[in-house]
Amino acid sequence: MSRALGVTLTPEPLPRIEAARVPAPRCAVPAALAAFCSDDREARLRHTYGRGYPDLVRAFRGDFAHAPDLVATPHDEAEIVATLEWAERADVAVIPFGGGTSVVGGVEPDLEQDGGYAGALSLDLGHLDRVLEVDPVSRAARIQAGVMGPSLEAQLQPYGLTLRHFPQSFEFSSLGGWIATRAGGHFATLATHIDDLVESIRMVTPTGLWASRRLPASGAGPSPDRLVLGSEGILGVITEAWVRVQQRPTWRASASVRFQDFDAAIAALRDIVQANLYPANCRVLDPQEAFLNQVVDDGSAVLLLGFESADGPRDAWIARALELARAHGGQTPDGVRIRTGEGTRDAPGDDPAGTWRNAFFEGPYLLNALVALGVIADTFETACTWDRFDALHAGICARMLEALERVCGGGLLTCRITHAYPDGLAPYYTFVAPGRRGEELAQWAELKAAASDAVLALGGTITHHHAVGRRHRDGYDRERPEPFARALRAMKAQVDPKGILNPGVLVPPLRASR
Amino acid sequence: MSRALGVTLTPEPLPRIEAARVPAPRCAVPAALAAFCSDDREARLRHTYGRGYPDLVRAFRGDFAHAPDLVATPHDEAEIVATLEWAERADVAVIPFGGGTSVVGGVEPDLEQDGGYAGALSLDLGHLDRVLEVDPVSRAARIQAGVMGPSLEAQLQPYGLTLRHFPQSFEFSSLGGWIATRAGGHFATLATHIDDLVESIRMVTPTGLWASRRLPASGAGPSPDRLVLGSEGILGVITEAWVRVQQRPTWRASASVRFQDFDAAIAALRDIVQANLYPANCRVLDPQEAFLNQVVDDGSAVLLLGFESADGPRDAWIARALELARAHGGQTPDGVRIRTGEGTRDAPGDDPAGTWRNAFFEGPYLLNALVALGVIADTFETACTWDRFDALHAGICARMLEALERVCGGGLLTCRITHAYPDGLAPYYTFVAPGRRGEELAQWAELKAAASDAVLALGGTITHHHAVGRRHRDGYDRERPEPFARALRAMKAQVDPKGILNPGVLVPPLRASR
Repeated sequence: MSRALGVTLTPEPLPRIEAARVPAPRCAVPAALAAFCSDDREARLRHTYGRGYPDLVRAFRGDFAHAPDLVATPHDEAEIVATLEWAERADVAVIPFGGGTSVVGGVEPDLEQDGGYAGALSLDLGHLDRVLEVDPVSRAARIQAGVMGPSLEAQLQPYGLTLRHFPQSFEFSSLGGWIATRAGGHFATLATHIDDLVESIRMVTPTGLWASRRLPASGAGPSPDRLVLGSEGILGVITEAWVRVQQRPTWRASASVRFQDFDAAIAALRDIVQANLYPANCRVLDPQEAFLNQVVDDGSAVLLLGFESADGPRDAWIARALELARAHGGQTPDGVRIRTGEGTRDAPGDDPAGTWRNAFFEGPYLLNALVALGVIADTFETACTWDRFDALHAGICARMLEALERVCGGGLLTCRITHAYPDGLAPYYTFVAPGRRGEELAQWAELKAAASDAVLALGGTITHHHAVGRRHRDGYDRERPEPFARALRAMKAQVDPKGILNPGVLVPPLRASR
Repeated sequence: MSRALGVTLTPEPLPRIEAARVPAPRCAVPAALAAFCSDDREARLRHTYGRGYPDLVRAFRGDFAHAPDLVATPHDEAEIVATLEWAERADVAVIPFGGGTSVVGGVEPDLEQDGGYAGALSLDLGHLDRVLEVDPVSRAARIQAGVMGPSLEAQLQPYGLTLRHFPQSFEFSSLGGWIATRAGGHFATLATHIDDLVESIRMVTPTGLWASRRLPASGAGPSPDRLVLGSEGILGVITEAWVRVQQRPTWRASASVRFQDFDAAIAALRDIVQANLYPANCRVLDPQEAFLNQVVDDGSAVLLLGFESADGPRDAWIARALELARAHGGQTPDGVRIRTGEGTRDAPGDDPAGTWRNAFFEGPYLLNALVALGVIADTFETACTWDRFDALHAGICARMLEALERVCGGGLLTCRITHAYPDGLAPYYTFVAPGRRGEELAQWAELKAAASDAVLALGGTITHHHAVGRRHRDGYDRERPEPFARALRAMKAQVDPKGILNPGVLVPPLRASR
């Protein structure tokens, strides 16, 4: 990293948990919740932040000024109902907490900002961690919201089933969190978001249980589930969902296709996705991204292509996708890798796609190390229609390189395409720059603002799958239809009339207008 | 039909438009809207009803007691805004009107029921009938809401593009209507509903313009478009949308697969849809349905299978689907029919799938004739997960045959599966029975109630693609989450505070609680 940024980097010593500064709790553990609620210092500290860059920096510095006063770990819906009832009476803000991997300030209390409460309680769904029911005929499962990715997959495994929803946070994020934030997952085409894997949802609201009927599809009014998807904890606490699972794939084919330039790779991606071939993996890495992730080192852009099936070979599918890629100058020096049988997995390092996948899951760990080195590092993502991509990408690169130069004296910007649609694509950017010790947060804020402004000005969405939280709220306000904003607030006021649920996230806190 | 029902049927004379009983308008054409608004008798009469069975019966009898007082045919958004402004001041209910093909009372005013207004205005979007912009790169088009199916396709045709959304009402229904009612279309798998073809929507509400950003996907909060989809005119007047179009298919393969029984056809359908082969057509007709539609006459159930592509042959796809069908005993005496080249269409009668398609589009015309014969005929549809289908289907058949016997002394019930999903399917039922002249509406109401009760009790949705309107409102109330119902009303009150938009549809009219 020193070489890449052209500066000398020295790691700071790792922070010690004892040195963290955590304010005294503003409220005491209520008797009614004593069985599952605590004001333990470390519990509070561990529920203060998500995993965004400014979270890590503040945690690294021992700054836990925004720690919740209480942490509740309910075992069932009755305890969640009791928590909400107490919080309404006590005027305490309640923040639903799944895995705490938000990168947009989605789980961080900020009572000053939010209009004042008697305190904040982090409601950790971690005990709701079971697969409750499996329907192998419909390929669906009823699963509690607090289950983390690996446990969810382990519980489905004996049935030969899998959700195959692998966001980058997979190890440490929960089903309920995925639903609340419309997480983006494994599939690069078709069911890219958790939205499409949800059959029904149960959610406890302060004014009653919101439970939808389990259905494969319906045309009865606006979808109630689509209102919960993306609600980020402001309408209720998601407790369980029926989700669509599938048989574990027994046939996989993958290839990495090299292109002399990024544009050619993008053109190939568009042709493949518009041909309705529906690859599971269909991601493009720009030359910097491909190099930094050790996929290739020859300056190529790379298209990672993967098909999978539990039904049998799909040779014709990948053959046609490769034909389309080659028509744009794509080269496949490593050929097509086919694996069959139950439980086949990429071993680390044995092919470029596997190398990239491992780098993908290691990315968030790397971010921790960069913070210790005083490096500013963050990612942002968007989506736009194909016709706008060239201008959007060029504009983002120009604006971000200018901002990196201005704010940090230089830096790196890389791009990959994480998801693709017949009508558009989702580019994902990483920026890395040397920070000035003590000024990193202000520097980061300038870079983040430049990114958000660029994305919105150039026709993208403020977020394709990182959610809104607190950090994207300004951008969200600029993006969404104005009457919809009012409608959403009216809905929030109806189901959470005291405004206790996750104030400050997604919509302006109800109290800010008082 | 006489033979099928075992009774002698005599057609009544066709009604004459002059004999229709239309009440005098309750309000006069306002000067501000005079350029595009009228109280013309025939215009009012033509905007009174949808195309459901009770609509046809009442129209046949000359009963237009619910005629709107005024019909406005605005040319642009400014005229729509002017209409809503006037209607708020004059306390007149406004009913957005696309093609008027609702089968659930979605466009019919009923002021007594709805809490009293000074009058009702039908807002016909027919002049907003153009494709405004085509983006061939992203395969999307900006289209006005009032365009009817055939005109929409004709305007896309020069670009080599098509929406390929063919609900049964295609000839006479509009893009805006499809969006407002979450119409089900051509594709039996994947993008079954118009929901998935929508990129962004513009909607005029009484409190401002609701315009979403054109995006292929987003994770920023709950989707604003998903709230408009299914809103059935109660939140605003949809004026245009960007929709996802595609290249016209140049390769098509189809086959009709015969099964000795319905269960085997259903099992094959499930295997095919769970194999992620994504056929465009994948519909099952029960033996009665196959016989009445002249597809086969040997008592078989039939699976109609069709693949299509603009990218080239998909032989491996249909070959695998047929393998799966044959494993359940499916026979393909007519083989696979492959057609290539631009503009290929099924000619009437040249294959079983084509025969069925023609019968499909002729169905609504047939309903008109049955009304003249005094026959009660209607359809209802639902969706459920695969695990529930056997019980749901058996229960519906038992309850409906009992109801037909009780109410009409007998009748026919047929079933087809119109859409299929990895986790479930959408069965579609048709019932036909001899009515007693003058009592048909009461008889129909009993049969309809039996159908709705059965569907809901057995785990289905009140509607897969016929919308809620007035006729499914009780069922919708039983199906949707209670806090969602409150949230939807709060949202309606926020964007339409005077409650003028399509009162009585989808949610109880705001005034009913006064």
